[in-house]
Amino acid sequence: MIRLFVEAELKLGVEITPSAEQGHYLASVMRLGNGDEIALFNGRDGEWLAHLHLIGKKGCRLTCQTKLRDQPAASELVLIQALVKRKPLETLIEKAVELGVGTVSLALTRRTNADHTNVSRLQAIAIEASEQCERLDCPEIVAPEPLDRVLAKLPDATPVLFCDEQWQAPAIRAPLQSLEGIATGPAAILIGPEGGFTPEERDQLLARTQVTPLWLGPRILRADTAAIAALTLYQAARGDWRRS
Amino acid sequence: MIRLFVEAELKLGVEITPSAEQGHYLASVMRLGNGDEIALFNGRDGEWLAHLHLIGKKGCRLTCQTKLRDQPAASELVLIQALVKRKPLETLIEKAVELGVGTVSLALTRRTNADHTNVSRLQAIAIEASEQCERLDCPEIVAPEPLDRVLAKLPDATPVLFCDEQWQAPAIRAPLQSLEGIATGPAAILIGPEGGFTPEERDQLLARTQVTPLWLGPRILRADTAAIAALTLYQAARGDWRRS
Repeated sequence: MIRLFVEAELKLGVEITPSAEQGHYLASVMRLGNGDEIALFNGRDGEWLAHLHLIGKKGCRLTCQTKLRDQPAASELVLIQALVKRKPLETLIEKAVELGVGTVSLALTRRTNADHTNVSRLQAIAIEASEQCERLDCPEIVAPEPLDRVLAKLPDATPVLFCDEQWQAPAIRAPLQSLEGIATGPAAILIGPEGGFTPEERDQLLARTQVTPLWLGPRILRADTAAIAALTLYQAARGDWRRS
Repeated sequence: MIRLFVEAELKLGVEITPSAEQGHYLASVMRLGNGDEIALFNGRDGEWLAHLHLIGKKGCRLTCQTKLRDQPAASELVLIQALVKRKPLETLIEKAVELGVGTVSLALTRRTNADHTNVSRLQAIAIEASEQCERLDCPEIVAPEPLDRVLAKLPDATPVLFCDEQWQAPAIRAPLQSLEGIATGPAAILIGPEGGFTPEERDQLLARTQVTPLWLGPRILRADTAAIAALTLYQAARGDWRRS
């Protein structure tokens, strides 16, 4: 069944007018007709079965019929991602959504070599990934800010898993071992830019009490691979992949 | 330092003529000059420091000087990947190399909707990823064959971790729990096509004694995300990310 993310309130009998793009997608691309069913979610009211009604040649309206799923608690997992090139950034946003991230905060560090990105395009990628992966919410993509400011905005005592490619060998702990020491609940994963962190940035990060280094194996990972791997490990060891 | 994968034997004093493409890359793109250092590996003889010598305007020759690293044992981790579209296939090959896969065997299943792919292009992606991620070997990409034949070629008793999106809820075990039951050593991870496996394929797979289902969380993952996540979990729980 087609799933759409909408902003409007969802409840029994409510009528939703999809955006022009969504309407085009439903009526012209997917060629849905009167009475066809789709699923709607807005990040607040759970998932609803809706019926489509065509209006004229191009428009359509959706009527909420039945609640399919209740809204689960929102993910408290934050990905703090230093700006990287467009292609890996788009890949990792899509994958982070599938892996259940709650928020992606873009960060500027000393070695990021861009200071802006098209956040609305990234948000659109996140919405599409949410629709595809059957989430009932869509992570917010927060526009780039200096790393210090991003860290300062985290709720107090949020553990930060610092994925540091240059981590010195003697200090290495296996990643599942590092994760064992992290409380469940809110957490942030920090991934650096292509060029890594400067020694000063690393020292400053490691001096923070809430920061735990997370080693990601003996090979050098690209930024997008590192983000996907770290989110996977977090979910398996501390997140919603622990259900047994 | 620039790293290149070559076929030739590497030992003290041996002279290597890089391929035309590699020579162009070294001399024209990276503008290396006489005496500049690069690292060479071939999957057998470890990593060697080599000096470059320009020959004429376009050619160059490399002389092995010092062994930098010994050749580690080859990875016994196989990714059995059902053919998927070009873009996710290329993404997952690159990431699988970074994550330490030993072999990628492409498989044809009932719902794969292509029966061939450009294996030499995928192999080139694997070589480039090996050079980038500091591996000392390059995984082989094995051309597509029917899934049964791929499974039959695995060494006897190789555990197969079957990542099955349609796995029924009551049977779900957390992925780290499933991995605990797997012996270290050779292992294969099986990822299906975009449309998943047919019920018959699933039944046949689950009837094999060496097959263990691996659940990848409550959301629907794309094939490339599933492959990256499963390889990450394997390495963290059973592979070379366990060093402490």
